[in-house]
Amino acid sequence: MSKILVQKFGGTSVGDPERIRRVANRIKSYHDKGYQLVVVVSAMGDTTDDLIDLAAKISANPPKREMDMLLSTGEQISVSLLAMALHEIHVPARSFTGGQVHIVTDGNFSNARIESIDTKRLSAELDKGQVCIVAGFQGIDQNQNITTLGRGGSDTTAVALAAALKAKECEIYTDVDGVYTTDPNKVEKARKLDQISYDEMLELASLGAGVLHSRSVEFAKKYEVIIHVKSSFNYSEGTKVVSESQIMEKITVTGVTLKSDDARMTVADIPDKPGVAAEIFQVLADKKINIDVIVQSSSRPDRSTGKDRTNTIAFTLPIAAVAEAKETLQPLIAKWGAGNISADANIAIVSAVGVGMKSHTGVAASMFKALADNGINIEMISTSEIKISCVIAKDRGKDALRLIHTVFGLDKDS
Amino acid sequence: MSKILVQKFGGTSVGDPERIRRVANRIKSYHDKGYQLVVVVSAMGDTTDDLIDLAAKISANPPKREMDMLLSTGEQISVSLLAMALHEIHVPARSFTGGQVHIVTDGNFSNARIESIDTKRLSAELDKGQVCIVAGFQGIDQNQNITTLGRGGSDTTAVALAAALKAKECEIYTDVDGVYTTDPNKVEKARKLDQISYDEMLELASLGAGVLHSRSVEFAKKYEVIIHVKSSFNYSEGTKVVSESQIMEKITVTGVTLKSDDARMTVADIPDKPGVAAEIFQVLADKKINIDVIVQSSSRPDRSTGKDRTNTIAFTLPIAAVAEAKETLQPLIAKWGAGNISADANIAIVSAVGVGMKSHTGVAASMFKALADNGINIEMISTSEIKISCVIAKDRGKDALRLIHTVFGLDKDS
Repeated sequence: MSKILVQKFGGTSVGDPERIRRVANRIKSYHDKGYQLVVVVSAMGDTTDDLIDLAAKISANPPKREMDMLLSTGEQISVSLLAMALHEIHVPARSFTGGQVHIVTDGNFSNARIESIDTKRLSAELDKGQVCIVAGFQGIDQNQNITTLGRGGSDTTAVALAAALKAKECEIYTDVDGVYTTDPNKVEKARKLDQISYDEMLELASLGAGVLHSRSVEFAKKYEVIIHVKSSFNYSEGTKVVSESQIMEKITVTGVTLKSDDARMTVADIPDKPGVAAEIFQVLADKKINIDVIVQSSSRPDRSTGKDRTNTIAFTLPIAAVAEAKETLQPLIAKWGAGNISADANIAIVSAVGVGMKSHTGVAASMFKALADNGINIEMISTSEIKISCVIAKDRGKDALRLIHTVFGLDKDS
Repeated sequence: MSKILVQKFGGTSVGDPERIRRVANRIKSYHDKGYQLVVVVSAMGDTTDDLIDLAAKISANPPKREMDMLLSTGEQISVSLLAMALHEIHVPARSFTGGQVHIVTDGNFSNARIESIDTKRLSAELDKGQVCIVAGFQGIDQNQNITTLGRGGSDTTAVALAAALKAKECEIYTDVDGVYTTDPNKVEKARKLDQISYDEMLELASLGAGVLHSRSVEFAKKYEVIIHVKSSFNYSEGTKVVSESQIMEKITVTGVTLKSDDARMTVADIPDKPGVAAEIFQVLADKKINIDVIVQSSSRPDRSTGKDRTNTIAFTLPIAAVAEAKETLQPLIAKWGAGNISADANIAIVSAVGVGMKSHTGVAASMFKALADNGINIEMISTSEIKISCVIAKDRGKDALRLIHTVFGLDKDS
């Protein structure tokens, strides 16, 4: 088995010199065990925000190429400091920019995609016994311009390096112990999972509950990289994100989530014509408004009044985006000469995620029954192969979350 | 004639967003005149010091490779911000690290020498009409490691780029108007020079009086790059540093300087044997102690006592280095079994520099006479082809400086 281990530490873990020293000690403990280590680091604490503020003083709309040039310095600072901290405790280490270890991306500044990694330099340094500290979040394009990978970029760097180096696994250190069955702040009986599949992790990430960004999980799934989510505050085992085939016992539901910052928008009485729904979601997508649950219903044509059949489309979106969404849809209503828009922020979305749903029947039914038995009305339903989401009244959100956590046997003591 | 102009702005000129905007406006004025511009920038104000402090919190003796990785971010930040400021005023601009424009150095981290510059990328960007903003002070070695050039590094970057691109000239912007006949803070009648030769500039730099670091001047001399020292606070002509052959009227003395932070160290009664002086200056050089004036005198052998002939070597060195120098020389005294060391900090060194000395006789005599006529005793003398230095009592330093400035016709009204 590979002796190469990729470890990733976020900005909080390297937020000040004392924490950098602590990370160095952890790295040393793995180095002493004989692992060949590639360590990916984010920018220290608030560095990136400080650099963004600095740029804002120069330009309200700086060119993305120059922003990437600026922001990439944050990681370059933290990798060099971590290498120094390792030298202090006599661990041979060298820091590298994304460009220096040949992380080549497309030229889409501020949101670049990794296209290739040439591991020649890293392999040579590892063979010399060096711990390689690599700046996360960055790469270079074909023309040597510095690019950044956008949100969750350092996780993606770590997973991509693990894939390219065929590493044993990719450890992602965070401020939590691992992935939980639900938010431990909301449900006391939340339990840490030992394993979770890529697809479940992706669903949880899209529900805002994952500790990992979707892009890094997608990357890991594609290249079958084992991600190990661990706490940077202790040495206990965390949660491994693995392919479905590696999970021994498939439990029906792995996690349940609650989203309370979404609103429901209803676009009623719109023409029953092909392309209407497509138009609505295209203009919202153009504004990068995140839509979650979508439900469409139709009215029957009314023979007595001679009115045509009309449609109603309801969907959930972040409360913060309601005003912009209304403004964006108004021209469509005007064009169609029909329809009216309303919004309701008093909702919550409770979801259950689990690959076991594929083979277990009746999961949705159990969820609906549990809610009904407790007097919680379901306003909208959306399902995928491994997820069921119900829109309910906001004031029943936490009740519903605890209830479903218990119903699917996720409580700590069960 | 080349339309390419290299401009270099120091850390003070880009110390905050407002100053960066001001530099951008100046660049625009040259861009509008049709110049192809390559702009070299140092790190903003205190950035480098802040990064050094940060490293010191991690390690008392960080590896030089990692220090270069860390410090090079300072220039990367300022170039990206300056490029943004140019975009704001609709000047097309792109920022580059040293590595991106192929400034290849040796692998001597923290004090690297430029070995080659491949101008392909820069030429291509200039041809596209881009103003190229290049990070000063940095390069990469053969293995893509980031290196820094040490003190005065950004000036060296600018001159090297001007040489490689065969630029019209290399403008170095500073907080003074140009090169003066002497320090205007000490002599009211100091006059700005229109021109000065490389060799004179080098002598002034070694006397601590130059606005340019020796390395950049040496580089300019080697490749015959015209350096134009200008103020970043106004648009007036500065001083051009050119080859001797380009200077029309050769004035005898170009500049006079006063150094008041040196001490004289005397090593007396040492053996009159070959190699003794060499040993002394070798151990001092090993400690990187800067020696300026050196004088050796011999005692006659004393037949009555039978004592051998002995030597006395006196030299000037920074007051701050006296203790270290004594400690360094003590083992030699012990080895020889003879000699004693004393130091005197109550001295000043007054110097006159000028290529005209080569052809004018009597320059030294005029200087000695002027000092003698004013009751200033000369304690040591050192001369080179284009420089005369006299060690005098510290309390007469300023008098001597003004006097010599007048004697050689450098006063503003003469």
